[in-house]
Formats: sequence, structure tokens, C-alpha cells
Amino acid sequence: MTHLLIIGGSDAGISAALRAKELDSKVDVTVVVADSFPNYSICGIPFYLSGEVPDWRNLAHRTAEEITQTGINLLLNHTAQTVYPAKKSVEIVDQQGQVQWLTYDKLIVATGAVPVKPAIEGLELPGVFLLHSMEDTFAVHQHLTNHAPQSVVIVGGGYIGLEMADALTHRGIAVTLVEHSATVMKTVDPSLGQVIGEELRRHNVEVINRVEIETIEQKGTQLIVSGTGGFHKTTDMVLVAVGVRPLTDLAPEAGLKTGQRGAIQVNRKMETNVPDIYAAGDCVETWHRLLNEYTYLPLGTTAHKQGRIAGENAVGGEQEFAGSLGTQVVKIFDLAVARTGLRDAEAQGGRFNAVTVEMDAWDHKVYYPGAHKLRIRITGDAQNGRLLGAQMVGHYQGEVAKRIDIFATALFHGMNVDELNELDLSYTPPLSSPWDPVQMSAQAWVKQQIKYHS
Amino acid sequence: MTHLLIIGGSDAGISAALRAKELDSKVDVTVVVADSFPNYSICGIPFYLSGEVPDWRNLAHRTAEEITQTGINLLLNHTAQTVYPAKKSVEIVDQQGQVQWLTYDKLIVATGAVPVKPAIEGLELPGVFLLHSMEDTFAVHQHLTNHAPQSVVIVGGGYIGLEMADALTHRGIAVTLVEHSATVMKTVDPSLGQVIGEELRRHNVEVINRVEIETIEQKGTQLIVSGTGGFHKTTDMVLVAVGVRPLTDLAPEAGLKTGQRGAIQVNRKMETNVPDIYAAGDCVETWHRLLNEYTYLPLGTTAHKQGRIAGENAVGGEQEFAGSLGTQVVKIFDLAVARTGLRDAEAQGGRFNAVTVEMDAWDHKVYYPGAHKLRIRITGDAQNGRLLGAQMVGHYQGEVAKRIDIFATALFHGMNVDELNELDLSYTPPLSSPWDPVQMSAQAWVKQQIKYHS
Repeated sequence: MTHLLIIGGSDAGISAALRAKELDSKVDVTVVVADSFPNYSICGIPFYLSGEVPDWRNLAHRTAEEITQTGINLLLNHTAQTVYPAKKSVEIVDQQGQVQWLTYDKLIVATGAVPVKPAIEGLELPGVFLLHSMEDTFAVHQHLTNHAPQSVVIVGGGYIGLEMADALTHRGIAVTLVEHSATVMKTVDPSLGQVIGEELRRHNVEVINRVEIETIEQKGTQLIVSGTGGFHKTTDMVLVAVGVRPLTDLAPEAGLKTGQRGAIQVNRKMETNVPDIYAAGDCVETWHRLLNEYTYLPLGTTAHKQGRIAGENAVGGEQEFAGSLGTQVVKIFDLAVARTGLRDAEAQGGRFNAVTVEMDAWDHKVYYPGAHKLRIRITGDAQNGRLLGAQMVGHYQGEVAKRIDIFATALFHGMNVDELNELDLSYTPPLSSPWDPVQMSAQAWVKQQIKYHS
Repeated sequence: MTHLLIIGGSDAGISAALRAKELDSKVDVTVVVADSFPNYSICGIPFYLSGEVPDWRNLAHRTAEEITQTGINLLLNHTAQTVYPAKKSVEIVDQQGQVQWLTYDKLIVATGAVPVKPAIEGLELPGVFLLHSMEDTFAVHQHLTNHAPQSVVIVGGGYIGLEMADALTHRGIAVTLVEHSATVMKTVDPSLGQVIGEELRRHNVEVINRVEIETIEQKGTQLIVSGTGGFHKTTDMVLVAVGVRPLTDLAPEAGLKTGQRGAIQVNRKMETNVPDIYAAGDCVETWHRLLNEYTYLPLGTTAHKQGRIAGENAVGGEQEFAGSLGTQVVKIFDLAVARTGLRDAEAQGGRFNAVTVEMDAWDHKVYYPGAHKLRIRITGDAQNGRLLGAQMVGHYQGEVAKRIDIFATALFHGMNVDELNELDLSYTPPLSSPWDPVQMSAQAWVKQQIKYHS
């Protein structure tokens, strides 16, 4: 019997376990989970803290029971300490410090990521939180319940920071969001970041740009948050969300090569450099389908895909990861903000001649009630007309997310911008136009190219 | 100077005119329009009659003024009678019977379609309407205004019939919908037709299936509608919507070859068999990208695309129509119903081994409020795993339309069902799942294939 050992019980680890078991019911699968919460939707944490999801248990993609019913062994509250590839064994420790060794035929490392701890003084103070795991979530929730803070300073205007600004506003807390860049959400271009900033302000979030937080100090029951440019803010609570880094403490001892940001290097079969050890999810470098190179791009969707491939290959499969396009969407109040592929700055290096065109389009025929304006930025290669990426912001009921997915599917196939007009997309006046906004943006891009060359 | 003459001022005709002018500002473009309403969104008619669009003028994609400002000549209220290819001239008649001849270098026939008149006695009675043109619309609107009917019988459970059932219910009229098949909307499979039937009934529409209407008689100010199986219904108004046929009266005299349903035969450059005559839109046979053959599949989106290509080629272009996938969506009350590609019955003929799997999936993580259930039917070729088509029904805010477009984009590229799992689609808990419902359906299809073969 093959022993498949998986370190990590989040998206990648559980996807790997399920896929392996689905393809080969005789394989013995054990998943080592650092906490008691396997397969939790950590993307759902803001909606628990907002109060929209009343019971945190609902955040589970699957319950521990559902997982073990498939025949998978879950070793909860155990942490892998050291991997010994020569002996094909892993040293595991439980919360009481009890050590044991598990052997494997195949090992999948899916240890995920942890929040980046920025160089801010006072991060250890009570009322200051970093947010990533379910344990972090409980700590924040307890603080919200016991101390009923009236105000919060959120440090970081990325996905988590913005979702938490929405969540805590929903809870009635006065939110100040501090972002060191000129606009929030640096993963989209500034003109879209500005739209998001306006949406935040419309919902009474105080948005502070171009400030770097330096210290947090306690003052009675409150906290004073200070930063560059003379920024000072007294608040009841601080939430720090400035990104994540791969959790790869196991890598050096195990002889696993690491690369960007310290993420484990894998090939497209999710194999590491060490025989019989795979790795997947937020702890690995990710193959980028357009850049044709490895990047660090941690996303839940990617973790699911990579985990599934690692699981399949660990039981004899030959699957290859097709690559990430960096497709992402986030809902901030009434807005959906989505992107896929490359932006100008990301398409540098001489290989691309990236040109971006911005345009507005209605999500459906404007004569039908309830039309929402979408702002679209489409990026193509001026040299060969190839589509490189798209960004879109608009009302979340304007099918922003799945419109980005049309672009993502087009990018997957290396389409030209102009070719988007050949796609047979659905139309009815309450839901689109005869040329979908995706196609209108393509036409705008092509027109600008013609103008430029004539 | 090149003279481009276009017969027909709806989607295909105006798209052709605009594209020709865009590419070659020196070409002389004249569009002969049978009524005073060029470039009207006839797909929007139900929403004018429902009262949701208060002013019919808003249904114009562009106003006549906007069109003529581009330098296009519009000859309104003129009908083309005869095309003389030998003389390259067209006989035109105005509403007073005044005849004139226009010559052309290139001609585009875009005469569209007209409603099918079924073999029902009494279609000419006052209070009985067929609906297609703006003139028909005004007649219906006038009747609604002047006679304030309390009840209507709609004959035909296709797109227009269903949209009008929604529209007239919205207006407070008691609707009876009669469809001769066992379920409404024969363009989707019966299990989805049944969901639509339930939605209609939930909104108090009386849905009568398996009845063929035979006669309509007048009885005082009312109408008695009678059909097979002893069906009788007394009503204030009757609307007949049993499909359309191509309007190709010009074809025989002009020597234009016609094919299915009498539609004009064209190649993928939208050229007819007669030199310098193109045709596009609802009056032509349409290249089907999956069937690799011509079909009759009249759709506004296709008309726009074909018109654009005809216009481009008429001024020297070499564009080819990439083909239709039959992608469609319609909103009925709170439901969106969408499809793309082929269903089992449409994929017959030995070339495909079509297998369809039906499944339900939430439009987003169910822990986040407001999740809607989507019902998806995915069709693939059991022989080679190729995706053939998809159908979806669910709440219109569940991104049904643009999810079908992900399938449509995948079909455009001939993807396999299993490959859908490689697509990097967007995810956030309020808008999707780590595997989008599109991918969940692909996984369900693949699983069923494995089960079947093992």
C-alpha cells in the first residue's frame, strides 16, 4: 500500500488528498493539519468578522467528518517539524510537544503562507492583529465581542485590508485605512484604485494614502498609530494586512530548493527537486502562463488546482499545471474589482510591447432599468495584437467577475485582442449588449492602435 | 467613389454601414430602411411593452441622426422591390408608391426576418397580434393603452412568448401561455424548461403545455382561443409568437441561392453566389462553428458580427465569419436561461457521441448571504472528451449569462471538458467558489464518464 503524507490541511493539501483518494481508493492518505480547522475557506474570514456569516463553522469547504469519510486520515493539531528525505520520514509534534515520526512513499508539502510582519513598532500590543488563520480570526472576533471597539485602523490597502474595511464598516465600526501607495489596491492600475477609494469614502471609510505606518503605542485603553508625514491616529484597534509570505521553514532541512520570496521551487508536475516530494499552493513558486516563468502569486484558486495535480501525480499521474494568469476578484461594498493577465508594468522586459486602453461601458442596454457602468482597462501587445490582460471595476451585480473570466479564457488560449469580437457571447437587453462590454473594450483597443499607426 | 448600397436598417445593415465607413471614409454608403426606425433594438420591444422602458425612442441602439452624422445616407420608409444584378441596380419604392432605381458597386442584403404566421384561423381579428417590427409594437402598445385588456393568451413558449409573458404580467395583465411541447423553451432541455415553467407559474402565469391552437373567434369584445384536447379560453387579447423566418422575397429575382428555411446562402465572407452581393443577419444561413455546416440560427449578436464582416469585405476586406455557437440568454422574471453549443439532439448524425450531465451548484459560497442555485447541463463527446455545449438556468444575478460565455469561449477554442479545470477563473466567496460552477460541472461530467467506463 502506498503511503501518501500531506503536510498542510488548507486548500492545496485537502485538494491533493481528495484527488489522490478519488483516483486510487487504495492509497493511504494522511494529512497533517497544524490546527483543528482543515479545509477552511480563509477567503471567507472577513464575512465571519463582518457578521454576515454568523457561524464560523460554515466557513469550512468540507467538515473534518466529510473528509475522513472519504478514507483520508486527518492528524489535527500536529505540526511537521522536519522532513528527512533519506529516511522518507517526517518528524511531527503535537500541541503537548509529543513527537512522532511518520514515514511516506510520497510527500506533498502544502504549508501555505503566513502574514508578512512589517517593521512597525508595537505589533505585539493588545488590540493589534494580523489576520490569516482561523486562530487569528478567533482572536479578532473575541476582541470585537469583548471590547466592542468603535474605531479601527487598518494598515494595508490590499485585498484583505479592503475586505476588512468593508466588514468592519458593516459592523458599525469607524474605519481608517492606511495605504502607503497613492491609491489602494496596487494590483490594479491607479485609475481603478481611485474608483475603489471613492467607494470606500462613500461608505465613510477614511482612506489615507501615501503614509507608511511606523509605530503603534498604547495610551490607556486606546492605541496611537503614527506614520510618515506626521500621521497620528488614536484608535481602539489595529489590523495589519500587508501581504503574505510562503511558510517554508521545512525547506532547508529537507533540501528543497526555494526561489522567489523563499517559495519552494517546483516544476509543472508540482515536483520539488527532492525525489518523491511534491509541493503545492501558497508555499510554492507558481508557473505563469503568459510570462512563461515562475512567480510568487498565492491564490486560493491556484492552490486548489496545484493541490489537485500534486495529488494526482503522487498516485502515478502525469498532470501538468497549466499555469496561472493571476485572475482575481474582490467585492468591496457594492463594487467588484477584477483582473486577469498582465498590466503594463508586469509585461516589461522587452518581450511585450504592452499598451492599455481604458473605457467605460454599461453592463447592459441602458434603456433597461438598473444598468451599471463598468470601467475596463484592456492590455494588448502593440507588436502582434495579442491580448495580455484586463482589469475591470463596476457594480458587483454587473457580472464583472465572470466577464473577467471571459478574458481569462481568451488569455488561456493566447487570443488576439481583435479576435475577441469573434466570440459568440450571450445577449439579452437586461444582461448585456449585442457586443458585450468585453468586446467593446477590444474594439476600443483596436481603434486606438489604428489611430496611433495612421 | 465606391457606392455601397445596403438593404435593411436593423442590426446587420447598420453594422455593415458603420464598419464600411469606419474603414473607408470615402465610400458612399446608403441604407434603405423599410420603416422610420433604423438600428432599433428589437430585442428590447418586450421591455417597452412592459412599461419598463417608458419611451420607445430609447430602444434605438443609435439615433438616425447619429448614423447620418457618420456620413451614412439613410433612405427611410423605402422598400427594395427588385435587385437587378446585371445592371447593378435596385428598384426602390416609397410609401406613396413612388419608384426609383439606385445603382451600386457593392450590395449588402440585410432584410432580416419576419414572424412565422401559423395555420390558426382568426389571426386577422382585432386584438390578435404578431410581434416583430416597431410598427407591430406600436399596434400592440396602442391596443394596451386604448383597450386596457385584462387578459391575454400568448401562443408560443419560445424567447419572445416568454419575455412577453413576463412583460404583460409586469403590466398587471393575466397571462395564459400556450406551448404545444411538453415544456416551454424548446431551445433548452426539458428539465430546464420545467424550471422555467415553475418560474412562470410562481408569477401567476397560466402555462398550458401540449396544446396546439387551432382557431381564434370573436365573441363580443372578447376572443375565444381554441385548440387541441378541448382547449378553450376566453381572453381580451392574443399574441402569437411562434418563431421567425428569413425575409428573402428579393432572392429569386436577384438570382440569390437560398437554402434552409429559405435563407440566403452565403460563404464565410458573407458573399452570396452573385458577384458583388453580400448578405448578413437574420435573412441568411449561418455558419455553425461546431457543426461545421450552415444552419438557420437568427440572433442579434450574429447579425451584428455578420454585418460587420460584410461591411468590411464590401470595402475590400477579407474577413471571415468565425461561426455561431448558438449562444443565447433570456431573462424570465428572476431567472436567466442561457445556452451555448450543442445539445444531445443537435449533436446527432454520427459525428458526435454526445453525453449530457446535469448538476446543481451555488453561484457563490453558500455561507455568504444571497447564494442562488444554478442548474447546469453540460454536454461533451464521450468519444474524445470534447466539450460540445452547456445550458444553465438560475437567478439572473447569479452571473448565468457570463458563465455561459466562459463555456462559449471554451467552445470557440475546441476545449475538452476536463481542460475547463485548467482555466484560471476569478474567485471571491460572494461571487463564486474556488472551482467555479462551470468547472464543477466539468468535474461532474468527467466523473460520470469514469464511472461509466469502469
